[in-house]
Amino acid sequence: MVKYAERMNLLTGSEIRELLKLTAQPEIISFAGGLPAPELFPVEGMKAAAIKVMDEMGRTAMQYSTTEGVPALREKIAERMKAKNNIDTDAEHILITSGSQQGLDFAARVFLDKDDVVLMESPSYLGAINAFKACEPKFIEIPTDGNGMIMEELEKVLATTDRVKMIYVIPDFQNPSGRTWTMERRNAFMEIINKYEIPVIEDNPYGELRFENENMPSLKSMDTKGLVVFLGTFSKILAPGYRLGWTCASTEILEKFNFMKQSSDLQASTISQLETNAFLDMYSLDDHVELIKEVYGKRRKCMLDAMAEYFPAECTWTIPDGGLFTWVVLPKYIDAKEMALQCIAKNVAYVPGGSFFPNGGNDNTFRMNYSCMPEEKIVEGIKRIGEVIKANLK
Amino acid sequence: MVKYAERMNLLTGSEIRELLKLTAQPEIISFAGGLPAPELFPVEGMKAAAIKVMDEMGRTAMQYSTTEGVPALREKIAERMKAKNNIDTDAEHILITSGSQQGLDFAARVFLDKDDVVLMESPSYLGAINAFKACEPKFIEIPTDGNGMIMEELEKVLATTDRVKMIYVIPDFQNPSGRTWTMERRNAFMEIINKYEIPVIEDNPYGELRFENENMPSLKSMDTKGLVVFLGTFSKILAPGYRLGWTCASTEILEKFNFMKQSSDLQASTISQLETNAFLDMYSLDDHVELIKEVYGKRRKCMLDAMAEYFPAECTWTIPDGGLFTWVVLPKYIDAKEMALQCIAKNVAYVPGGSFFPNGGNDNTFRMNYSCMPEEKIVEGIKRIGEVIKANLK
Repeated sequence: MVKYAERMNLLTGSEIRELLKLTAQPEIISFAGGLPAPELFPVEGMKAAAIKVMDEMGRTAMQYSTTEGVPALREKIAERMKAKNNIDTDAEHILITSGSQQGLDFAARVFLDKDDVVLMESPSYLGAINAFKACEPKFIEIPTDGNGMIMEELEKVLATTDRVKMIYVIPDFQNPSGRTWTMERRNAFMEIINKYEIPVIEDNPYGELRFENENMPSLKSMDTKGLVVFLGTFSKILAPGYRLGWTCASTEILEKFNFMKQSSDLQASTISQLETNAFLDMYSLDDHVELIKEVYGKRRKCMLDAMAEYFPAECTWTIPDGGLFTWVVLPKYIDAKEMALQCIAKNVAYVPGGSFFPNGGNDNTFRMNYSCMPEEKIVEGIKRIGEVIKANLK
Repeated sequence: MVKYAERMNLLTGSEIRELLKLTAQPEIISFAGGLPAPELFPVEGMKAAAIKVMDEMGRTAMQYSTTEGVPALREKIAERMKAKNNIDTDAEHILITSGSQQGLDFAARVFLDKDDVVLMESPSYLGAINAFKACEPKFIEIPTDGNGMIMEELEKVLATTDRVKMIYVIPDFQNPSGRTWTMERRNAFMEIINKYEIPVIEDNPYGELRFENENMPSLKSMDTKGLVVFLGTFSKILAPGYRLGWTCASTEILEKFNFMKQSSDLQASTISQLETNAFLDMYSLDDHVELIKEVYGKRRKCMLDAMAEYFPAECTWTIPDGGLFTWVVLPKYIDAKEMALQCIAKNVAYVPGGSFFPNGGNDNTFRMNYSCMPEEKIVEGIKRIGEVIKANLK
């Protein structure tokens, strides 16, 4: 009999992926995914970039390249992080990964032995929970409110818990909650982190997609001790199909991530890197991000307006300043997982919230994505979900 | 102070990568890499494929796709495995990975807990040793000879060792030794494996690159109990820059690999997969492989002839029937690591063999790659190494 490693008992595939299979039919109005809107992809621009790469450096593009990533692309990323996140960095501190999901996998393997403790917001990103599980840690969830992670609770846990090796956070337009940490919380967080000297994984896939209010400084920009590992990605500002993300960290920590990259898959796709790099040379990514923000901003408003109209007063939801998601809390007695099946029967889908809590519970919640449905479908879908919720009220 | 996971003590970067940095200057004649010859890459064909993909399905190519990989490409891979390796499989049993290196990483994580035992040929592929190390196993090396792994030694270890969870082998044109297992060894191996029911990772990156003698059946084609996990790749038959490999395994085992893929990096690059798939629709990969075989076959002959002329009688080396490498054994008193520096001083490079032994030793060996140097440089490089060897003889 084949025997598997113990970690395989914990990895059972993502519920979202299974649900997405159910919702793949074209008649379904799906708020379940986290996909960027494909109609906005700069297909002609990326085609021109691909032609340029094959004409000017085809052999290089088809060959192995370095583990760290293509130097010109790493330089552009460092420049962008300076401009957008006020992070004082350079190409030497950037590792190109196969999407920022791979940065999560590496973070777990660099910092976590079995039974070590990882702290995360409650709720938090399902893909991070799954990536971390492969290292068999214990999860402690830190409660959150509309202003982000609750710092008194974080400090309490740090003061009383051994083997805390890593803290995972998404301070901007969090997945799944759509919430953004206030300046006060960010300051308090960095003070606590500097006291306990615990490495922080700051996951920032949506930071550039702000529709209103002021940008908040990234934790990495406030990091004086080299404790913050910043994960970025092209998936939400350009396209996910190239599978390009990056990790920005101190020299010492990044070296460990490089070792993991080398043993995991040697390097990110050379062709993906060079095509993306050429696109950035030829076009303005800022202009493209403005377009995305305009469309997503409208879809967000459309969804929030429809919720206000069709959802009963017994529900609450977040008003995100940016990103892709809002988060709905139902009365405690409604199970959003069961209700999801009732919704799919009416050709509308969301992701039940329970999977976003590593230790379970909270089944009266769900996540709504507004980035990849046109406005008329958003209104119709919200109307249908509203009807289902009302039918479940006691 | 930041604390790392214990596995990070074992991962210190590959010696080859460090050496490749030293040998990157154009004046160096390098036999150190394992790179395919870039002058053979079908750049125009891949450019045409890229244009076709962007014209016909640009949005799909830039979007997320499934963890398992693009269905059309998985079907083509299954067909190719039937045709080339006589493996009775289908698309459902294929997972697309980010190079076959990622299959090695997943194999370790699916099968190995800390202190479990992995068996491998002595010597074996450095990248596999590094990937497995991240799971902190114990390595037991099984001795080899010109006919492959020595089966009496394998059986002895299996009969007397607890916690053997996985056996890693490269039966065709092995990296680093260039050796191929005989039919007799393959039969004996499968008999032993079926008795002990241990999963086998059959790594086959070079199998199609045979210059002479008959093809040998893959272990996977002889597998009646679903114990063999086959790893394939486009890196050596098409191009490595797209980072596309695949894993073919039983339904049960492949499901575990799929979970690892999902938590590691979600999916391989959609753009890489669709461009490669379009190339395979538009052109004959078989014709391209014939071209590669012709060129590599000549370079191999050139290297072997030059070795016979310039290397002293105190050395031995393998005569590979295919693949990219030959393996040189020096007199025991010569340290190939020290000698590598003497060679680099003469602008010629190889990889010292010690790194290919997970438990160390065997410093009187080195690996030679013949695929990516033109013939006149091969002769000149071998001449220089021959001189250095002679200067080190007692």
